[in-house]
Amino acid sequence: MTVPATAAAAASATRTGRIERVQACMAEAGVDALLLSVGPDLPYLVGYEAMPLERLTMLVLPRSGAARLVVPRLEAMRVDAAVPAEVVAWDETDDPVALVASMVAPDAVLAIGDRTWARFVVDLQGALPSASWRRGSEVIGPVRIVKDDTEIAALETAANAVDDIAVAMRGVAFAGRSEIDVHRELAERIAAAGHQRLNFAIVAAGPNAASPHHEPGSTVIRDGDLVLCDFGGTMHGYCSDITRMYSVGEPTAEVAESYAVLRAAQETGVRAAVVGATCESVDRATRSVIEAAGLGAHFVHRTGHGIGAEEHEDPYIVAGDLRPLVPGHAFSIEPGIYVSGRYGMRLEDIVVATADGPRRLNAAPRDLAIVA
Amino acid sequence: MTVPATAAAAASATRTGRIERVQACMAEAGVDALLLSVGPDLPYLVGYEAMPLERLTMLVLPRSGAARLVVPRLEAMRVDAAVPAEVVAWDETDDPVALVASMVAPDAVLAIGDRTWARFVVDLQGALPSASWRRGSEVIGPVRIVKDDTEIAALETAANAVDDIAVAMRGVAFAGRSEIDVHRELAERIAAAGHQRLNFAIVAAGPNAASPHHEPGSTVIRDGDLVLCDFGGTMHGYCSDITRMYSVGEPTAEVAESYAVLRAAQETGVRAAVVGATCESVDRATRSVIEAAGLGAHFVHRTGHGIGAEEHEDPYIVAGDLRPLVPGHAFSIEPGIYVSGRYGMRLEDIVVATADGPRRLNAAPRDLAIVA
Repeated sequence: MTVPATAAAAASATRTGRIERVQACMAEAGVDALLLSVGPDLPYLVGYEAMPLERLTMLVLPRSGAARLVVPRLEAMRVDAAVPAEVVAWDETDDPVALVASMVAPDAVLAIGDRTWARFVVDLQGALPSASWRRGSEVIGPVRIVKDDTEIAALETAANAVDDIAVAMRGVAFAGRSEIDVHRELAERIAAAGHQRLNFAIVAAGPNAASPHHEPGSTVIRDGDLVLCDFGGTMHGYCSDITRMYSVGEPTAEVAESYAVLRAAQETGVRAAVVGATCESVDRATRSVIEAAGLGAHFVHRTGHGIGAEEHEDPYIVAGDLRPLVPGHAFSIEPGIYVSGRYGMRLEDIVVATADGPRRLNAAPRDLAIVA
Repeated sequence: MTVPATAAAAASATRTGRIERVQACMAEAGVDALLLSVGPDLPYLVGYEAMPLERLTMLVLPRSGAARLVVPRLEAMRVDAAVPAEVVAWDETDDPVALVASMVAPDAVLAIGDRTWARFVVDLQGALPSASWRRGSEVIGPVRIVKDDTEIAALETAANAVDDIAVAMRGVAFAGRSEIDVHRELAERIAAAGHQRLNFAIVAAGPNAASPHHEPGSTVIRDGDLVLCDFGGTMHGYCSDITRMYSVGEPTAEVAESYAVLRAAQETGVRAAVVGATCESVDRATRSVIEAAGLGAHFVHRTGHGIGAEEHEDPYIVAGDLRPLVPGHAFSIEPGIYVSGRYGMRLEDIVVATADGPRRLNAAPRDLAIVA
């Protein structure tokens, strides 16, 4: 084995290794070719991101042999020479679906990238009526789910960035501002911290926080409100995601007690996330703390989701998922307590399963921040 | 006919009208149900936007009768009461694909929204092996392609916003800055002008502009460079998109001559975009000006694309498209001249076909701006 001389060589070796592992999964699953278009799979595998537009970009990776990348001619110049695929450019009046179809056997078993637009699936199925179709994640998911050291470092860099924001928000005045105003501040801070993309910045005040995916709006934050901030973005291809709670003034005794339960549940969930534990068991451990406090009916969602190139990806920390955690799994632990019409709260960190036990990537204080 | 008393009532009437027209298209095309998930079709039809995440949101619209909206329970609270569909919430351990499949006949003809993620297409096809599948745009496209007065007003508001930016950039210094720095300025201006989303902000200097979809990078803009700026965003659901050219100092005689050809081609294209003309004929008229100047080989893409809720949508102004323009079609006219290794240029306005002739929505000066 030679040691890569440069970062570019290391990236190239990484891509080659990933392609080989995906092809091994294809052989095992009986998949003849993998077709990737928009979404994170393509940059993960070859370092090129398809534009989310109507002109088809599609990688055709056979079970063995070299990949081809079908791209519109006017984007072919964007494809770096380091991309490990033969570039096949198509012209404005060509039919890219026919081009892709010509690269596989008529009765092939095809796995198609999970986020590929349905219009291309329908068109490809029309061109290949005898082919059979699987989710791309069947063969690329098992590779993506285990993060290597470089990926964990990237997740940690992104986590540190949102930690800093979560801490800074403890010194910010909330009262009298609208949710959308605080949302904009978070969005600006996320960009300023070096993320290339904002994924979400939920700001939910008072009763609004009882809706876990509340859309920040014109609601004005008032004295006494409990405010949920759940935010993250994508930095150099890897995502951040954190939730912290802010109380405008001292919380009521009920909120303080619920928060203590939430914090204990989150701590229990993190500690349960050891190598070998099933995803379901981590959900159960987290949930049992909230149930024991008589609040189980108010924890209305799963405990967490995987994170990496996507903000939500495998593994999901949810009942029914019996997969055991392995070193390199990265995921959120984010229990919540939602009391309709009154308040809501959630506490979220990103955690990596390691041979030495669960490792939190987020380090911002987890107590209920008292703000003005 | 009653006159709607409020904006909400007007919006409701608009949605009802759209649903009726889509259902008429479904009857004509023999489609039993339309399934819509992520992307612009769903907000266009019912005023709700699906979160682009792994939890399935799907509208099931039968050919006749009322629509149902399948949503994750933790997002059900986001659905406004004005959404004209029965909300069917699913819990974290439910199977939303089975739920959708149960709402249609096993052998149904189904049209699925163009941007629906492939993973859901594959899963639905597994649950409904006897169903047949079409593109959603087959039945919603004919409705979306004709913009009403409210939509044209929204496109004009967005066009005015980027016009102002294009004008402001004429007073900005380019030399010595990187493309990505100018890109960031455009992105900030697009947000500040009231767009909720940046769609793209291409900045391509000197030879980089010969790549039509160049990714702005670290290239430093130098004296004498010709700089292409193509930018737009989404404002209240409708898109802006404009391209203007900036020359750092006086252009060479060759660039000035090519630009004169480009401007004449764009003007000819706009004038050709009359009701009844085919999309292909507008492309031909535009292209012929560039061909007559001996530069035809350097115009490597179609003349334009439709615009509305999506930055690129039907109708496409391209050879082979024999559809005639009708009042309410909105599209770009954007010829380009790309000389590999040396320079590139493009000039783009959004145009609406009307009974009174083509109407430009952009009004920013079209001459080659000389900047510092």
